[in-house]
Amino acid sequence: MEKVIIIGSGPAAHTAAIYTARANLKPVMYEGLMAGGMPAGGQLTVTNDIENFPGFPDGISGQSLMSLMRQQALNCGTTIKTVTVNKVALNEKPFKVFAGMEEIQAETIIIATGATAKRLSISGEAHLWQKGISACAVCDGALPIFRDQILVVVGGGDTACEEALHLTKYASKVIMAVRRDVLRASQAMQNKVKKNAKIEIYWNTNVTEALGETKLKQVKIFNNRTEKNSVIDVGGLFYAVGHIPNTDFLQGQLKLDESGYIVTRPGTTQTSIDGVFACGDVQDKHYRQAITAAGTGCMAALETENYLDRE
Amino acid sequence: MEKVIIIGSGPAAHTAAIYTARANLKPVMYEGLMAGGMPAGGQLTVTNDIENFPGFPDGISGQSLMSLMRQQALNCGTTIKTVTVNKVALNEKPFKVFAGMEEIQAETIIIATGATAKRLSISGEAHLWQKGISACAVCDGALPIFRDQILVVVGGGDTACEEALHLTKYASKVIMAVRRDVLRASQAMQNKVKKNAKIEIYWNTNVTEALGETKLKQVKIFNNRTEKNSVIDVGGLFYAVGHIPNTDFLQGQLKLDESGYIVTRPGTTQTSIDGVFACGDVQDKHYRQAITAAGTGCMAALETENYLDRE
Repeated sequence: MEKVIIIGSGPAAHTAAIYTARANLKPVMYEGLMAGGMPAGGQLTVTNDIENFPGFPDGISGQSLMSLMRQQALNCGTTIKTVTVNKVALNEKPFKVFAGMEEIQAETIIIATGATAKRLSISGEAHLWQKGISACAVCDGALPIFRDQILVVVGGGDTACEEALHLTKYASKVIMAVRRDVLRASQAMQNKVKKNAKIEIYWNTNVTEALGETKLKQVKIFNNRTEKNSVIDVGGLFYAVGHIPNTDFLQGQLKLDESGYIVTRPGTTQTSIDGVFACGDVQDKHYRQAITAAGTGCMAALETENYLDRE
Repeated sequence: MEKVIIIGSGPAAHTAAIYTARANLKPVMYEGLMAGGMPAGGQLTVTNDIENFPGFPDGISGQSLMSLMRQQALNCGTTIKTVTVNKVALNEKPFKVFAGMEEIQAETIIIATGATAKRLSISGEAHLWQKGISACAVCDGALPIFRDQILVVVGGGDTACEEALHLTKYASKVIMAVRRDVLRASQAMQNKVKKNAKIEIYWNTNVTEALGETKLKQVKIFNNRTEKNSVIDVGGLFYAVGHIPNTDFLQGQLKLDESGYIVTRPGTTQTSIDGVFACGDVQDKHYRQAITAAGTGCMAALETENYLDRE
């Protein structure tokens, strides 16, 4: 029987591990083996250099930051298992976690399985990922490669509008490629976008191909009304078509919102089941930053300790 | 007119600065000049080595971590002024910030002025601070100097009980020095403390002196019922007598809770005035960790950007 099992391997998971290990709770972390198609370490392992994680004035690569955190979790006494959790049973205590061939009992569970940015799966995307294609304007927009370039944002929701507005701070021009002839975004956001002289909206437009050898140079677009293809020169392509939280393994045992994110009591990491805590992007569709994820990992650890003290 | 003024100099303030600077909002930070009796950098500058900030597997001193963050804020384009903000005017927009002889207008304000742990101001406290005396069991309890020692916790509230329970994981014995003959803590916490064989409660007890040359060796205690003094050998003294949030300069212009903390909408950094955001310990009496403060600093920056986009 474990006191606490942590599922995940990103900043939230490792921060939860550091705190629970220092509190002598002997955490066991299941970091997964290409869980959700992602290497251990999570989304940061497939990003550009990170300039906004506080404490690293010269920036740091996502892989380096994650190996530092992993080492720190180990140093503090975390047991890390490179196995993917397939299933959990939360209907009675102790909880059960199924990973590979193992079935482990746990007094508490911290879920930090993250979310995965949706991709378009267009031609050229795989080899140009993070070479001009990004799923996070807030993370990457300020990088030198995107300065004074024409940047394309794909999507028509609030996030797409926010990202387009954010990118106008660096870009010479921002093109929003919107599949339909309307935006899904709130009226306030639509007004803001339409008033911004740097943003041009391409309606009824699908991005169909990313072109470039070692970095993105052009995108091919298709107008689904006129049915015409064209190619435009661009310096960056930003996807804002949503994220998929990694919550399938829960099989509906925790309360999720309409997009599949775990619902936590605002300002805490408490889920709908006492003793099960969620932190990081799996419960956050709004901020989604490494540092906010790490902050909630700490909260989950302190709440877990407090829960075990009370029980 | 500034787009955003940040008041404070701890992890929340610097993370807010890094994010707003990268969003080209040209933040101006007032880090203060011994504001609240604290050097710029905040509470971390008077702590032991930090083992639980993710990304630093070998630990890092509070001062080093804060100078890294400060450098990063500067690198990203923050203007830092070493002046204390005495007053703000939030009743009309643009807001006004008064610092030294300056009066500055701002579209938005991020408040990250932190909180200060209350001290007892007993003899020996000043020179033994962080040499056996600490105001944060969660931060410091796991340090080698406290392992297998007799540790004293001062206080009788929920936090004191939590800290005492936390310390039982390392200590040979924990003494709770409680001024009255009852605990203020919740019944559940009281039961937990009283059931723990490692915790002994000294009722009607004031700690009156800390003894030791280069580190804490003994404390002098006074029983306020029998009026007897005694001296006990201890390895650590933990204050859990509350914190004072640094909100005096607001002069009641923002909604505060009964302890003087800024009230934010749970899960956000929004204060009672649109365009004024609060992050870090000045709005958090529960988690109070460097990493949670940094997380909320990021949230404040993203909410500020979003607010400016909407306005």
